[in-house]
Amino acid sequence: MAVERSREELPKILNGVDTEAVSRAVSALNENPELAAFKFRLKNKWIDCGHNHSTISEFHGTGQDIAHLKAFELDSDEPPTLAGKDLGANPVEHLLNALAACLTTTMVYHAALRGIRIDALESELEGDIDLRGFLGISNEVRRGYQNIRVKFRVKTDAQNLARLKALSKLSPVFDVVSKGTSVDVQVEKM
Amino acid sequence: MAVERSREELPKILNGVDTEAVSRAVSALNENPELAAFKFRLKNKWIDCGHNHSTISEFHGTGQDIAHLKAFELDSDEPPTLAGKDLGANPVEHLLNALAACLTTTMVYHAALRGIRIDALESELEGDIDLRGFLGISNEVRRGYQNIRVKFRVKTDAQNLARLKALSKLSPVFDVVSKGTSVDVQVEKM
Repeated sequence: MAVERSREELPKILNGVDTEAVSRAVSALNENPELAAFKFRLKNKWIDCGHNHSTISEFHGTGQDIAHLKAFELDSDEPPTLAGKDLGANPVEHLLNALAACLTTTMVYHAALRGIRIDALESELEGDIDLRGFLGISNEVRRGYQNIRVKFRVKTDAQNLARLKALSKLSPVFDVVSKGTSVDVQVEKM
Repeated sequence: MAVERSREELPKILNGVDTEAVSRAVSALNENPELAAFKFRLKNKWIDCGHNHSTISEFHGTGQDIAHLKAFELDSDEPPTLAGKDLGANPVEHLLNALAACLTTTMVYHAALRGIRIDALESELEGDIDLRGFLGISNEVRRGYQNIRVKFRVKTDAQNLARLKALSKLSPVFDVVSKGTSVDVQVEKM
């Protein structure tokens, strides 16, 4: 990784990130690229109307299946305005959460590896969806977000701001949401 | 909306969806397109290392700001393998949740509006990420998912399966994840 300071000059912990451990991981993946092939997994079960439930219990990485310390349970639903019971954030709100979380974590980790200290970090996200697309009222309106705006506020030296913006864009979710990726959908009979 | 049966022929509730209410909403948005301009919103706060927290409390739609029945709180973290404490699903797992939830809800709602009954619905998702992209070890490896596989199992008449697959792809999150969208990132000093 193109860190500007040698590993010895970095604080062992910066922004809460164990820079020594991450640097060791980078070296290991550099030497054994096959260990870098991760697979993230999820099971979802529809409950009723707009309500469904996801369970995330394990993933594959560093050549092995790895259990999370506990399974994560996530509910989605639609608000009453969209005919649901509001038993969870809706899918497009969950997408904003994935994007906010990934931009944030990416900024924090990559800043730590470059010796940039962040004392506090908040964001607000807003995305525009014209429901005429989803509902099929107009074929000229796209179904997903037309635009997503992300506003970060960072407690750090002012000279770091432009750098942090660039680092946040190394985010895997930003990559997918801004560029798209291949999604293969199969439907079988239960 | 291109429903095949007239509104009168549809059951009032199908797949848990109030088809009368949704059909009324479609008519209202058809007559007043400005009501279809929704804005979904989220606030996120970094806590430490890979741990951050999102709050989703309101959105804009049908010409007004609308509060959720309660605020939804979501945590993200990285597993110990990725230098975190595993206090929540990680961002790319949250992305899979958004995609699973949206494909599911879209299939269920659009099936209801076409008179297709779904008795049960489950999915498993898996996505491939080569961490050499995120870590900057290789510039030739993309940072986000290279591919996402979605496997649905549906309890329904076998003749509905191909139709349900096509309907699921009307999903707003599928649209964004498969095609990408505009994301504007700003970083200001706190």
